[in-house]
Amino acid sequence: MSNKPQLHTIISPRLLDIYDVSNSIVVIIDVFRATSTIATALYNGAAKVIPVDAVDKCITIGNATPNSITAGERDGKVIEGLQYGNSPAEYPRSFVEGKTLVLTTTNGTKLLHMALQKGASNIVTGSFPNLDAVCNYLIKQNKNVFLGCSAWKDRFNLEDTLFAGAVINRVKQHFTIHCDASLMAEEMYLQHRGDMKAFIRKTTHWHRLAQYGLEKDLEYCVTENVANILPLYKEGSLVIGYNE
Amino acid sequence: MSNKPQLHTIISPRLLDIYDVSNSIVVIIDVFRATSTIATALYNGAAKVIPVDAVDKCITIGNATPNSITAGERDGKVIEGLQYGNSPAEYPRSFVEGKTLVLTTTNGTKLLHMALQKGASNIVTGSFPNLDAVCNYLIKQNKNVFLGCSAWKDRFNLEDTLFAGAVINRVKQHFTIHCDASLMAEEMYLQHRGDMKAFIRKTTHWHRLAQYGLEKDLEYCVTENVANILPLYKEGSLVIGYNE
Repeated sequence: MSNKPQLHTIISPRLLDIYDVSNSIVVIIDVFRATSTIATALYNGAAKVIPVDAVDKCITIGNATPNSITAGERDGKVIEGLQYGNSPAEYPRSFVEGKTLVLTTTNGTKLLHMALQKGASNIVTGSFPNLDAVCNYLIKQNKNVFLGCSAWKDRFNLEDTLFAGAVINRVKQHFTIHCDASLMAEEMYLQHRGDMKAFIRKTTHWHRLAQYGLEKDLEYCVTENVANILPLYKEGSLVIGYNE
Repeated sequence: MSNKPQLHTIISPRLLDIYDVSNSIVVIIDVFRATSTIATALYNGAAKVIPVDAVDKCITIGNATPNSITAGERDGKVIEGLQYGNSPAEYPRSFVEGKTLVLTTTNGTKLLHMALQKGASNIVTGSFPNLDAVCNYLIKQNKNVFLGCSAWKDRFNLEDTLFAGAVINRVKQHFTIHCDASLMAEEMYLQHRGDMKAFIRKTTHWHRLAQYGLEKDLEYCVTENVANILPLYKEGSLVIGYNE
C-alpha cells in the first residue's frame, strides 16, 4: 500500500460529517463568488478577510475594526446595513489595499465554520483565480486533504465541482484517491477545461446570477491564476499564507 | 415558462430532505446491486419483493410469508440467519418463479423507506437491466420526478449517477430540468456509455466488491434492458407495474 496522504471531494456541506477531517486540510470552494472574491481582495492588498456567518455579526465586527469594510449580498444586491457586495470586481487595489474586509456569504462561510468545528487543522480557500497557489500548498503539506464544495443551499453545483477537478488533475500523483466524487470531478474538468466560459452558462447558478447582470463576474471566477495567492485561515481571519 | 413536470437528481440519501418529494415519483437507484437484483427477480417470475431495512425484520417477515426466501449480504457474504445473497445471478426463473423475496440491503432499502416517509406518491426501482421500463413509466406519468441515488454509506457513487444519466438522456425532452446534478449525470453517462464495463472498474464500489469475485455480477448490473420490467412499490411490496 502507498503511504501517500488521502484526498476526498465533498460535494455538499451536508456530507461533511461523513468524513473525519481532523488533522487535515480542508479547501473551502465557493467559486460563485465568495472564494473568488476572497482571493482577489487579498491579492489586491487587503490586510485580511474576516468571514462571518451572520449579517449582524458582520456589522458588529465591522464597527469594531479600524479601516474595515463590510460586505455581503443576497439575490445580487448589497444586504441592508452592509456597505459592499460579493463581487471580485468591487475590490481593486486602489480601493481595498490595507483594508480589512468583513464578509458574510450564504454557502462558503457556512462550510468554513463547519470545517472549523469538525477539527480541520488547516483551512484554505480556493477558486480558479488562485488555483496554482492552492495546488502548491496541498503538495507541500503532505497531509490528508478534503476539497469542500460549498454547493448552493446544500445542492450539488457544477462550478465548485469543476474547481475540485482542476485541483485533482494537478495534485493527484501526490495523493491516494479512492473517491468516486473525485473521479467524477476530474472527468468533468477535463471535459470542460477548454470551454469553461461557455459551459458555465448551462449551470443553475449562472441562470440565478446572470439575471443580475453578473456575467463578467462569473467569467472572471473561472479564470485561472489571475489572483494567485493562498488565503489561509488563522485566528479568525483569512490572510495570505506563504507555504510556511 | 414550460409546464412540463420537473426532474431532479439526488446524489445521496442525505440530500433527500432538501427536496419536496410529495406527490412525486421517486426512482430508487442502487445499481450495485439491490435494484438490479429486484428487477431480475421480478423479471424471472418472483411474485413480489418485500424490501426491509433490518435483518430481524427480514427473518420475521420471511417466517410469516408462505413460499418466501430471505436474502441479504454484508461484505459479499450472506448475512447470518438469512438464506440467500444480493446477487441477481442467484435468482433465475427455475428458482425464483412464484416466490416472494424478502430482501434487506444497506443503501437502497434505506432510501426507499426515507422516500416513503417523505410522502412520495409513486416509488419505483431502477437499474440498467430495466432502464427502458423506468423511462417509459416516467414519460407516461406526467409528474415531477426525483432520481434517488442510494450511494454508499451516503457517499456519492458513480454507478448510480451513471444510471440517473442514462434515464435523463432518454426522458429529458418531457421534463423541465434545472439541476446541476442532472446535467453532470447525463454528461458522465454520455462520456461512458460506450465503455461502461471498463469504466466501472475505476469505481470505489468495484474495488470493494471485486475482491469477493463479483466481477460478472457487476458487469451484469450495467447491462441495459436484460430484465426490462418496472418494479412498483405497492402496499409494502415491489411488484411488476404495467404503466397503468
